[in-house]
Amino acid sequence: MSQPDRNAPYLLGHDVGGTKLAVVIADRNGNILHKVRRPTEADRGPEAVVATLVDMSREAMARACLSSSDLAGVGVSCGGPLDTETGVVYAPPNLPGWDEVPLKAWLEDALSLPAFVENDANACALAEWSFGAGRGFRHMVYMTMSTGIGGGIILDGRLYRGPNDTAGEVGHMTIVENGPACGCGKRGCLESLCSGPSIARRAREKAQAAPDSLLIAFAGGDPDRITAETVMDAARKNDPCARQIVDETARYMATGLGNIVNVLNPEIIVIGTILVKAGDLLLEPIRDYLRRETWERVYDTVRVEAAGLGDEVGDLAAIAVIKQAVQTEGSS
Amino acid sequence: MSQPDRNAPYLLGHDVGGTKLAVVIADRNGNILHKVRRPTEADRGPEAVVATLVDMSREAMARACLSSSDLAGVGVSCGGPLDTETGVVYAPPNLPGWDEVPLKAWLEDALSLPAFVENDANACALAEWSFGAGRGFRHMVYMTMSTGIGGGIILDGRLYRGPNDTAGEVGHMTIVENGPACGCGKRGCLESLCSGPSIARRAREKAQAAPDSLLIAFAGGDPDRITAETVMDAARKNDPCARQIVDETARYMATGLGNIVNVLNPEIIVIGTILVKAGDLLLEPIRDYLRRETWERVYDTVRVEAAGLGDEVGDLAAIAVIKQAVQTEGSS
Repeated sequence: MSQPDRNAPYLLGHDVGGTKLAVVIADRNGNILHKVRRPTEADRGPEAVVATLVDMSREAMARACLSSSDLAGVGVSCGGPLDTETGVVYAPPNLPGWDEVPLKAWLEDALSLPAFVENDANACALAEWSFGAGRGFRHMVYMTMSTGIGGGIILDGRLYRGPNDTAGEVGHMTIVENGPACGCGKRGCLESLCSGPSIARRAREKAQAAPDSLLIAFAGGDPDRITAETVMDAARKNDPCARQIVDETARYMATGLGNIVNVLNPEIIVIGTILVKAGDLLLEPIRDYLRRETWERVYDTVRVEAAGLGDEVGDLAAIAVIKQAVQTEGSS
Repeated sequence: MSQPDRNAPYLLGHDVGGTKLAVVIADRNGNILHKVRRPTEADRGPEAVVATLVDMSREAMARACLSSSDLAGVGVSCGGPLDTETGVVYAPPNLPGWDEVPLKAWLEDALSLPAFVENDANACALAEWSFGAGRGFRHMVYMTMSTGIGGGIILDGRLYRGPNDTAGEVGHMTIVENGPACGCGKRGCLESLCSGPSIARRAREKAQAAPDSLLIAFAGGDPDRITAETVMDAARKNDPCARQIVDETARYMATGLGNIVNVLNPEIIVIGTILVKAGDLLLEPIRDYLRRETWERVYDTVRVEAAGLGDEVGDLAAIAVIKQAVQTEGSS
């Protein structure tokens, strides 16, 4: 059951998060027909979670008045590490107790549909490429700027996964030698500087020497409550500390993007989450610093853009996984 | 005349360097039948250089008792920037006066053979992948460590060129924030730390504080004559200064390789030139530092190896270009 049905007009998507599940039915243009959400309750174990997904799928199909034969297959966006060939999920940090879960096989058995499992960063990359800011480009790098910094890479019009589905770990490029400790065990990774918690940490450190900063006022007087969002809000009000943090963030991000551009020369880099909320406040200085990191001839050919799908990216990520499977593996 | 002839058993290669030209005839396994060398004399202008290449080709064919119909086509390895689609060369730094030279068209007209032009770093990557240390791998990154640091990338069994033939500039990843000035205009690029001249510069700086170092003795008493080779020779004799430079070089290289591994997760990284000469002296500490730069699961899947072709890489680079063209574009 590994071939998706090219003639079926609709796509089923499962977004498996640590706290919530979403099951979505959409057409091939990413128009959502029906969506069902439930809490994950991962502590019930993988069998129970998959049973819930199956139940949600049946509910979504009934609500959309569709049967299995109308669906090309099911795309799954899930935390990695996982093996896209076998569809086995290996102990994602956000799904405690999931170890070697044969997600693809379980879903195929229960739904009688071909299933394709992709890690969430790659699935979001596919979504932005199929339906969002990366549409129409052959070479795209997608980056999340969230609790962590992850990524997905489209080269020559195909998702590049690497030999064991671990390509795209853009957050663990070293940006500052002997820089801050990163969750991965290294120092000075892009993630240790520019993830949401890292931006907040740098801001808290700076705010301690500037008690009058809006950073503290906007955090209700408690420096420990400063977040990346506080930083962006205070920077919009021209708070000097916050603007320094934004500038530093842009500089670190541009160093990382410069490495990517020099090595891969993508046509577009699409950045999600924090950058979407920050908008030009962060995007403009990133572009300015990136210009210094790359040759003019190369800089002129690369765009840096905010992700286009916003909060919808999770729903469309799973849909993009099955859309991609139809295009590359489908039988008619 | 853009399709190479898949049935022709032999391949013609042109290696166009700033100081010398080589024309090579080989079979598809990279066995060289005949080779002709002449000085480039680039100041004679591109037309004269191409006339020489044509003349050398005829000589090589006559010596090997072959006619055009025995040859699948001609592969050209040349300094970039160039456009592989049109085969036009744009002002390579090592070929002054060459600007918008339609190298492919000129060679096809003169030789009545399809021609394929590739920049030299990509051509060397293809050579190592086809005939050298990268044989049999689907995902390979090749790096030169020479006057500059360049690279070529094979992903999913194909050369990845990027949208305008400028992918693979691994030498211009930023390794040290505000590090030494690089020829590209940036600071702290891998090339500014680990190219031959950069290794020599770091060694000279260190030697100035250590007049008893073997670095100076091995350079005939003149610190200005210290080269990367001097450093490796002195390190082999356990000179402390030289060993520090080797260790630093390995650390910077591993940071760059770590970025590549995190983003692309290749199966093998093949490093040429200085690393080939230095061997395990440099390779072992690079591997050790790389282990700290990557997750264990990823580190365990990537090999770092010295290039396998040695001085022959230039000759086989051009041959690998036409071999690749036969495989991806050939008509039978």
